[in-house]
Amino acid sequence: MSATIGKPRSEIDRVPRPDDIFSELRNLSADSVGVTRPSYGGGESAGLDLIARIASSHGLDVDRDRAANLVVTLSGTNASAPAMFIGSHMDSVPRGGNYDGAAGIIAGLICLLRFKLARQIPPRTIKLTCFRGEESAWFNAGCLGSRALFGDLSNKDLDLVRHDTGHSLRRHLEDLDAAIELIAAQRPLIDAKEIAAYYELHIEQGPVLVSTNIPVAVVTAIRGIFRISNIRCVGEEGHSGAVPREFRRDAVAATVELLHRMNARWTEISGQGHDLVLTTGMLFTDPAIHGAARIAGEVTFSFDARSQSETTLGRVKNLLFEECRSVAKQRCVEFVFGPEFAMRPSKMDSRLRSHFVHTAQRLGIPVSEIPSGPGHDATTFAQHGIPSAMIFIRNQNGSHNPYESMEMSDFMLGTDLLYHALLEQPP
Amino acid sequence: MSATIGKPRSEIDRVPRPDDIFSELRNLSADSVGVTRPSYGGGESAGLDLIARIASSHGLDVDRDRAANLVVTLSGTNASAPAMFIGSHMDSVPRGGNYDGAAGIIAGLICLLRFKLARQIPPRTIKLTCFRGEESAWFNAGCLGSRALFGDLSNKDLDLVRHDTGHSLRRHLEDLDAAIELIAAQRPLIDAKEIAAYYELHIEQGPVLVSTNIPVAVVTAIRGIFRISNIRCVGEEGHSGAVPREFRRDAVAATVELLHRMNARWTEISGQGHDLVLTTGMLFTDPAIHGAARIAGEVTFSFDARSQSETTLGRVKNLLFEECRSVAKQRCVEFVFGPEFAMRPSKMDSRLRSHFVHTAQRLGIPVSEIPSGPGHDATTFAQHGIPSAMIFIRNQNGSHNPYESMEMSDFMLGTDLLYHALLEQPP
Repeated sequence: MSATIGKPRSEIDRVPRPDDIFSELRNLSADSVGVTRPSYGGGESAGLDLIARIASSHGLDVDRDRAANLVVTLSGTNASAPAMFIGSHMDSVPRGGNYDGAAGIIAGLICLLRFKLARQIPPRTIKLTCFRGEESAWFNAGCLGSRALFGDLSNKDLDLVRHDTGHSLRRHLEDLDAAIELIAAQRPLIDAKEIAAYYELHIEQGPVLVSTNIPVAVVTAIRGIFRISNIRCVGEEGHSGAVPREFRRDAVAATVELLHRMNARWTEISGQGHDLVLTTGMLFTDPAIHGAARIAGEVTFSFDARSQSETTLGRVKNLLFEECRSVAKQRCVEFVFGPEFAMRPSKMDSRLRSHFVHTAQRLGIPVSEIPSGPGHDATTFAQHGIPSAMIFIRNQNGSHNPYESMEMSDFMLGTDLLYHALLEQPP
Repeated sequence: MSATIGKPRSEIDRVPRPDDIFSELRNLSADSVGVTRPSYGGGESAGLDLIARIASSHGLDVDRDRAANLVVTLSGTNASAPAMFIGSHMDSVPRGGNYDGAAGIIAGLICLLRFKLARQIPPRTIKLTCFRGEESAWFNAGCLGSRALFGDLSNKDLDLVRHDTGHSLRRHLEDLDAAIELIAAQRPLIDAKEIAAYYELHIEQGPVLVSTNIPVAVVTAIRGIFRISNIRCVGEEGHSGAVPREFRRDAVAATVELLHRMNARWTEISGQGHDLVLTTGMLFTDPAIHGAARIAGEVTFSFDARSQSETTLGRVKNLLFEECRSVAKQRCVEFVFGPEFAMRPSKMDSRLRSHFVHTAQRLGIPVSEIPSGPGHDATTFAQHGIPSAMIFIRNQNGSHNPYESMEMSDFMLGTDLLYHALLEQPP
């Protein structure tokens, strides 16, 4: 971890090489094809321990907050002023990539080490918060680490079960010595007034920067979410050859009809100029009983809508229920809805956006301004009224898959932008 | 098993009660909700052993053929004349019902016991063949027991793997001491010329007899099948919020589009008066990696088409490939096709149909004539030019589910029809 680039000419040269850190992190959480760092699980903890080791060995203060997130602190000149928070998350989706989340943590760590090694004291104390549980793939709800910190987790959230362990979020938090009573009482574990701003660097999880050939973006807003992870379509089983069409209550046919209609609604709404993406990422008949010669009596699927407009999300939610009612009636099936998850769209702070764009221009870093599709821990901070800003790094092959591909040179440009944005306070 | 009804006034009274036999069979193969008798597996073998025990204890000859099916023989007056074959299958789908298959075996057994106990000698030798492996749910191909007997299994068939054991059909046949070399060489294990006819009683697996309120039907024809049990739609994974619509290669959206189009084609073909049913009974994203916030990179599904017309099946097959090509192009995905399974439609023998209908009328049994949706072991016999006939018994709640519900009184009417059809040769 102590590898350095060439001769130690400047403070940058004594900072650990990011590709060494990424490579060690990958080794700690590698699966057959990518990396797997479950929320509140082994790979995530191992990653946080790695960051803690590197930070400690360079003399940074290392601590855990009461929601079991890792916090690395560098004191500023004005210790009593509200602190700057920077960070991102350590967990990944199952068989995901090495950069989604970890890039922001490692960028933050490198910034703190640059301050430390240059013996620079930043204007405000900087707290690098390395969150757990941001990915919704594990508990069907995301940003758990940041939401726990702000007292945003309900008891319903704490009862959510991680699909692979079968244990509740409550149990996972307890196992990591989080302050479960305070969290369950929805008590904030942190005072929002003591946070000056939140900065998060993250890979772009879509193809926009790649297709426009720009290495770095400043984020304008984060899309809101309306999601139901578990919708069951219940019909009736039957023999594929023996039941005439008019007697069928085919759960697959009904679900196909519903999703086809929602696709048509999407076309309609987009055609009216509204921002929207719809996704059904999970869709399955019961593997214990399904068969090619058997009409499916049940299908389970997810529905995920994202938009920069809360109005559009509300409209999509109504349309989903309306189309379900219509298909249920027409095909003699029933739709049974699991818990809803909603997150409001979040605008990034306009003063900070300008600060980032101007800093990039001054440094000669090509930069564009784009919205974020996915939610981030920055959403939690923004929704608590904390001025927030995000940097996106160009990334090939999308995210939530093992083929995420960020160039180290792009990462270093983004990290440099983050460092200078911290070094100089916004006007 | 030796329970009898009331006083022994006639030969019928000394025959074991069918509900006792069904009940013991259910106990031997019960699962949490219904019965599970896997093809070439434990529940199926236990069922066959039960039939063998009852047959033996009443002095019937019991043997296994070289395809591991059970054969119960009652010699006729003319031992050298071609024999009458009757039978059905012992296996069930996973969590299926107790009657699909077993009803025909138990009906045949009761007929033989009636001959035996009445000391009646039938005109021809009767062989009750209790087949294994009729349900395609286990190996993605059906009628394996009867097809093995006629040398119809290819080496590709023998390489098929049972999804729960992971063992090939070849291995399962070997474990049951079948003549695997002869079967693999596609040598018939039986001489079709020595079979006078094949009769099979089976529950109706659809709602037609229930809705027309008739207890028994004589089958006109068995629908042919075109099936691909495993089609993979391969696209690209991505974050649900981050990939704009025009960049997506969403495997769920593409599969929904395909199945929606095939549904429209079905409406079109049915509207032209052609017999057709289409079913996708298996449809799933990969449970190891799917998530509500992740665009699915792959979906697996089955496609099953049935029709009394070979022309219609050929047309549907062409349409499937055509629509797959079109959707693949439009949505930048690929469709990868597993092995095709095809079975030609089979007409039942018209002379035997008349014989059954006239016998029913003479006995005062209400009877109708309907086609069979599903394939049966009778298909194999018919396709080898052996005159074949089938009796359907009214059955509530369809088949291939735990809720099959046949009235014992309907079953006894059908069994009586089978008995008298055997007693008197067709004119």
